[in-house]
Amino acid sequence: MKYASGRHFLQIPGPTNVPDRILRAMDHAVIDHRGPAFGELGLKVLDEIKTIFKTQQNVVIYPSSGSGAWEAALSNTLSPRDKVLMVETGQFAALWVQMAKRLGLDPEVIVSDWRHGADADVIESRLSEDQTHSIKAVCIVHNETSTGCVSDIAAVRAAIDRADHPALLMVDTISSLASIDFRMDEWRVDVTIAGSQKGLMLPPGLAFNGISDKALAASKQAKLPRSYWHWGEQLASNKQGYFPYTPATTLLYGLHEAIAMLHEEGLENVFLRHKRHGNATRAAVDAWGLELVCLDPSAYSDTLTAVVMPQGTSADHFRRVTLEAFDMSLGTGLGRLADKIFRIGHLGYFNDLMLAGTLVGIEMGLARAGVAYQRGGVQAAIDYLAATH
Amino acid sequence: MKYASGRHFLQIPGPTNVPDRILRAMDHAVIDHRGPAFGELGLKVLDEIKTIFKTQQNVVIYPSSGSGAWEAALSNTLSPRDKVLMVETGQFAALWVQMAKRLGLDPEVIVSDWRHGADADVIESRLSEDQTHSIKAVCIVHNETSTGCVSDIAAVRAAIDRADHPALLMVDTISSLASIDFRMDEWRVDVTIAGSQKGLMLPPGLAFNGISDKALAASKQAKLPRSYWHWGEQLASNKQGYFPYTPATTLLYGLHEAIAMLHEEGLENVFLRHKRHGNATRAAVDAWGLELVCLDPSAYSDTLTAVVMPQGTSADHFRRVTLEAFDMSLGTGLGRLADKIFRIGHLGYFNDLMLAGTLVGIEMGLARAGVAYQRGGVQAAIDYLAATH
Amino acid sequence: MKYASGRHFLQIPGPTNVPDRILRAMDHAVIDHRGPAFGELGLKVLDEIKTIFKTQQNVVIYPSSGSGAWEAALSNTLSPRDKVLMVETGQFAALWVQMAKRLGLDPEVIVSDWRHGADADVIESRLSEDQTHSIKAVCIVHNETSTGCVSDIAAVRAAIDRADHPALLMVDTISSLASIDFRMDEWRVDVTIAGSQKGLMLPPGLAFNGISDKALAASKQAKLPRSYWHWGEQLASNKQGYFPYTPATTLLYGLHEAIAMLHEEGLENVFLRHKRHGNATRAAVDAWGLELVCLDPSAYSDTLTAVVMPQGTSADHFRRVTLEAFDMSLGTGLGRLADKIFRIGHLGYFNDLMLAGTLVGIEMGLARAGVAYQRGGVQAAIDYLAATH
Amino acid sequence: MKYASGRHFLQIPGPTNVPDRILRAMDHAVIDHRGPAFGELGLKVLDEIKTIFKTQQNVVIYPSSGSGAWEAALSNTLSPRDKVLMVETGQFAALWVQMAKRLGLDPEVIVSDWRHGADADVIESRLSEDQTHSIKAVCIVHNETSTGCVSDIAAVRAAIDRADHPALLMVDTISSLASIDFRMDEWRVDVTIAGSQKGLMLPPGLAFNGISDKALAASKQAKLPRSYWHWGEQLASNKQGYFPYTPATTLLYGLHEAIAMLHEEGLENVFLRHKRHGNATRAAVDAWGLELVCLDPSAYSDTLTAVVMPQGTSADHFRRVTLEAFDMSLGTGLGRLADKIFRIGHLGYFNDLMLAGTLVGIEMGLARAGVAYQRGGVQAAIDYLAATH
Repeated sequence: MKYASGRHFLQIPGPTNVPDRILRAMDHAVIDHRGPAFGELGLKVLDEIKTIFKTQQNVVIYPSSGSGAWEAALSNTLSPRDKVLMVETGQFAALWVQMAKRLGLDPEVIVSDWRHGADADVIESRLSEDQTHSIKAVCIVHNETSTGCVSDIAAVRAAIDRADHPALLMVDTISSLASIDFRMDEWRVDVTIAGSQKGLMLPPGLAFNGISDKALAASKQAKLPRSYWHWGEQLASNKQGYFPYTPATTLLYGLHEAIAMLHEEGLENVFLRHKRHGNATRAAVDAWGLELVCLDPSAYSDTLTAVVMPQGTSADHFRRVTLEAFDMSLGTGLGRLADKIFRIGHLGYFNDLMLAGTLVGIEMGLARAGVAYQRGGVQAAIDYLAATH
Repeated sequence: MKYASGRHFLQIPGPTNVPDRILRAMDHAVIDHRGPAFGELGLKVLDEIKTIFKTQQNVVIYPSSGSGAWEAALSNTLSPRDKVLMVETGQFAALWVQMAKRLGLDPEVIVSDWRHGADADVIESRLSEDQTHSIKAVCIVHNETSTGCVSDIAAVRAAIDRADHPALLMVDTISSLASIDFRMDEWRVDVTIAGSQKGLMLPPGLAFNGISDKALAASKQAKLPRSYWHWGEQLASNKQGYFPYTPATTLLYGLHEAIAMLHEEGLENVFLRHKRHGNATRAAVDAWGLELVCLDPSAYSDTLTAVVMPQGTSADHFRRVTLEAFDMSLGTGLGRLADKIFRIGHLGYFNDLMLAGTLVGIEMGLARAGVAYQRGGVQAAIDYLAATH
Repeated sequence: MKYASGRHFLQIPGPTNVPDRILRAMDHAVIDHRGPAFGELGLKVLDEIKTIFKTQQNVVIYPSSGSGAWEAALSNTLSPRDKVLMVETGQFAALWVQMAKRLGLDPEVIVSDWRHGADADVIESRLSEDQTHSIKAVCIVHNETSTGCVSDIAAVRAAIDRADHPALLMVDTISSLASIDFRMDEWRVDVTIAGSQKGLMLPPGLAFNGISDKALAASKQAKLPRSYWHWGEQLASNKQGYFPYTPATTLLYGLHEAIAMLHEEGLENVFLRHKRHGNATRAAVDAWGLELVCLDPSAYSDTLTAVVMPQGTSADHFRRVTLEAFDMSLGTGLGRLADKIFRIGHLGYFNDLMLAGTLVGIEMGLARAGVAYQRGGVQAAIDYLAATH
Repeated sequence: MKYASGRHFLQIPGPTNVPDRILRAMDHAVIDHRGPAFGELGLKVLDEIKTIFKTQQNVVIYPSSGSGAWEAALSNTLSPRDKVLMVETGQFAALWVQMAKRLGLDPEVIVSDWRHGADADVIESRLSEDQTHSIKAVCIVHNETSTGCVSDIAAVRAAIDRADHPALLMVDTISSLASIDFRMDEWRVDVTIAGSQKGLMLPPGLAFNGISDKALAASKQAKLPRSYWHWGEQLASNKQGYFPYTPATTLLYGLHEAIAMLHEEGLENVFLRHKRHGNATRAAVDAWGLELVCLDPSAYSDTLTAVVMPQGTSADHFRRVTLEAFDMSLGTGLGRLADKIFRIGHLGYFNDLMLAGTLVGIEMGLARAGVAYQRGGVQAAIDYLAATH
């Protein structure tokens, strides 16, 4: 690739900018994954990661991308042809549905317009109808990375409870964990799916399953074939801080550092920071006269903002122009939103001035790509940020 | 862990010592995995890696540990209850058998004494009996990491041919690739299993499948459920240098550097270097009066040496003493060999003086742990190394 | 120090932001400074650095900060009580005068208001008066880092020529080299002083003397005591790529990478980039209604902008507020300008979006610190940057 | 340079192998050298470094190589034509004498055979003769890096005291500090000269002066010109943790880490480790039938061993062969010892197995270069190391 001066702005909604501290923590010799020093490290990260999931139950870690954690969640708890209730809030939810089909499950899909979070009432109603409890799991994407809409997990939990339904609740937190508040135990989430490359500020390569005791019990009966993803083997090895196969050691070094950084800042402060940056970004989009993909203000995502391009304008042209002229990567529209929207990542290791550079890049990119917009988005964000510091 | 001066000697048979050049190549910001710079990188590594497999066919790369590549091999090509012929040459082969069972296959296992490579004649005879071609695949571990015995893949290929059997040939090269000669196309291997953390000198976290056209054709008919490991999706995305889900970007940076280093040294020189270090290590073991696990000189591994402890002596005690006194990690005995043997890794980024330090550490560790041995192993290795430079 | 999320903005006028590529190039084992690999490296960097100085003559490299290179320039070419003509354009020029006195020289100082570059006419007139050629050197700071005023070296050269005076011309390019055009040979500069930590994008720790043949001849007669800075020893060792004492090896690795990056971008493109960022910054300052320190538009610096605070407002208070609220470091006022001005560094490894973040940080900092200013500076810069890309 | 597999063995007597922890600590963004975070760092390292010098007085730090610290010591305390008593124990001492001459001092040199440390009796006798106290300083190299002979500083101190002479005691500890016990305050050393690249395990680039109050008082009267090296400016800035000019920030990051590591191991343990490795190395040399440069067992250096080549054998040929065949750098003979001796560095970040690799490399190199030697050096070292762990 051609050399360009200055730092690239990686403003896709993940992978996010990896802090130097984490890169440096990872930049170390590999150690014996069966030796005592590794066991210490393993115990530490397996314990520490629970604080991020807000759980006292179990979390397992795979060398894998986030979609592996989807597969682990399904294959450990379900049996061939099991019915699962899935809400298609966007492209990632749709891919999870596709995976469920491939694994031999029978997903029942609640469709959406890809511009809202999951509707808890619809879930409640569908579960209430399911008198035989044929639905074994409810699968929700917490923060739909393709649309910037958040689903209210507490509300989904309440809906399941109201329906008095025993289905497992599985939640994909890939682009919300460690950025938007998530409470595994309080919301009684049974399987939490997560990845390393967003709020955890790591490179991609680790995936996680938070596992409730109820999910663990279910896994003992589940009949889907599984080996690599087998929770039982993970949990058995994890007891002494080890893993059933060679773990991604250097990413675990980084994970330890990442969790330390999150606690240094304070997890609640991390959430507030993301909220403030979400608000500032939306103020800019509003001032530019552009439309958000997300139509429900209560569902606005604080980790990314998806923006609808004016009719007849190519989002990918705008993104390419912005990349070439200002060395910033923005997220592309996925699936049915391809070329119609662009996505701004404002999560992870981030601050006011990085956001400022990001928004200036967008404003200059809009001008340069000939997109119809109104000047002043950056100024609106500045005003918001200055007022709320 | 307690600080100790000087460099740790990581002499397990993998993960191996990661060169600084590779650590530095990985120590860089993550880039947009859907952007043009990534596409360039992806095309490059996907093409370059073929030279290491000695194939013109396809290689796919997963964010995963090596055992994931076992699962990918099986689940892409086979259907529930398919019969597979597996040779249990040691612990890793045994784990692969266990995985096959978990995935719903029907492995037929040729047992061994764990002190030899796979017996091609037995394979031929078993395949010849299989007139209905119920056996769908033959699964062999090239270099059995738990024993230090190499199986002769060319001979296995010839055995299959003599039996005129259509079974797929699957070979685990996790601890041989890029260290011991392996020729995927010449030997008509159908699926090659590999990992990043041994001869490729990378940290753990990437796994590979080399895929023959025959295996690819088989995958179109195979009925085992699969999603994360799905070859079809990988190959479709790979065409433009991309991946179907977020790849482990920083490990791919490292892979590019690793392949460059292997070619700078010359792949055949890499094999010769490993052979020479294997010989030197065996000369030392012989001089110490200790016994190799591997009983067949033609099957001696050039990447690791497994050594039998004198009767009544704990291998793990010796390893612990050596670690504490000399800051060197040696491989433990696995499965039925636990505490009875230790394993010396001499593969990857390695040279004469690192081997010298390793052997001195063992000789001093033997003394310190009170193991019965004869002095002179190091001297024997020095003499061999000096004579053969 | 307290952890804060996101990247620090280091916008002092040097040390500048070190690119990851350079940090990684430096992050390598030290090699034998008397071995063949070092000799190769030494020859390479000693040769390459000349392209940056635009000279065919000699450049020597010291493990030292920039002020060491001032001392090297003076002590190699002059004798006790020699008269030198120095133009005090700001704090750094003043420090150089102080050094000359300490070394036993007799500096004659042309004072300025610290708001202009050196006046070539005054230099010419003073040299013309010096019929006995008692003045041995003319010392000019090319880009005065304390004020953001550039002195026109070509004009100074012409002035010396018109006066037909044999004095050596010594130029401090510490904050201009590799950022603002400088032509050692074309302008017949006799000694060029430079440092690693500005346009060369390295950490501090290396200092440079570009040496004309005329200066070299003078050094043979010069009587000031010198040892560490002795050019003769440097040049003798440099012939084979070595140094007379242990060089700062890792910084030399970085220097090699830095020069490669400058040539990848193209040196003239580097100058244009700095000019554009200087213009954009000045557009912002103008829109804020603030005053530049530099009063001569033809002398505006493209590497830093010094801004006068409104009467009665503390520049250091503003800087502290900006650092605490937005994690950005700005340059302090030096010497007589202390607390009256602040300085914005926009040099080195830098681009439009980093500048955008910088200017937004200043605008928000001004608001937060209660400084009287007009909104719109960032918008003015955006408009300029977008129009001139 | 040509790529070779495995880690280079850098066994010159400095620069030494830099630990990854230190490289990683240095591999970070530069910060504002006038900002609060820097002030904190500065105060910390300026305070911590005193524990390594074993002083409660002052230590100043220069961006410079070690020879700069020689110049700082002389130029801060002495006046033109001052007499200094210097003991030429080897090449480095000789270079220091040369520097003193260049700076305009009048060194009186006690010559040696380059095979012993400084003779305290000769010093005493010379000082006793100096009734007028015309000798202003006694200059000693603690550990002469060119010969591997240590001078007994406590004995020199006692000699000065017995002569009741007011001369300052200046000691070069470049290759002893943090490896061989040195006690600045207890031995009343007035100026301690040190560098970063040996026992401090850093890359070259920092130099140090430990300054006694007596030396500081002397500096107020001293008349040698000085500016870059001026203690007064350093000490004034150091009070708040800052430096009078741009410091080598990244090396200071590394220094902080280095001191932490030395204290984690325990400074006295560090000395014992060096002593044990010195003994083991000498056991090997003895078994090879080779001769040490150092003729006085009480003066044997624990940081390096200089070995005399058999008559008629080129040391540099042997070193070149060893470098090419085994990728190990050994120290060359310097000055009058050129090509007659080689030097083995065994200091800094080092351990038993690194020493083992080093000695094996020498034994194989001797064989390969056709040097007359007896086998068994490595075995002798092993026996010593195993017996003394």
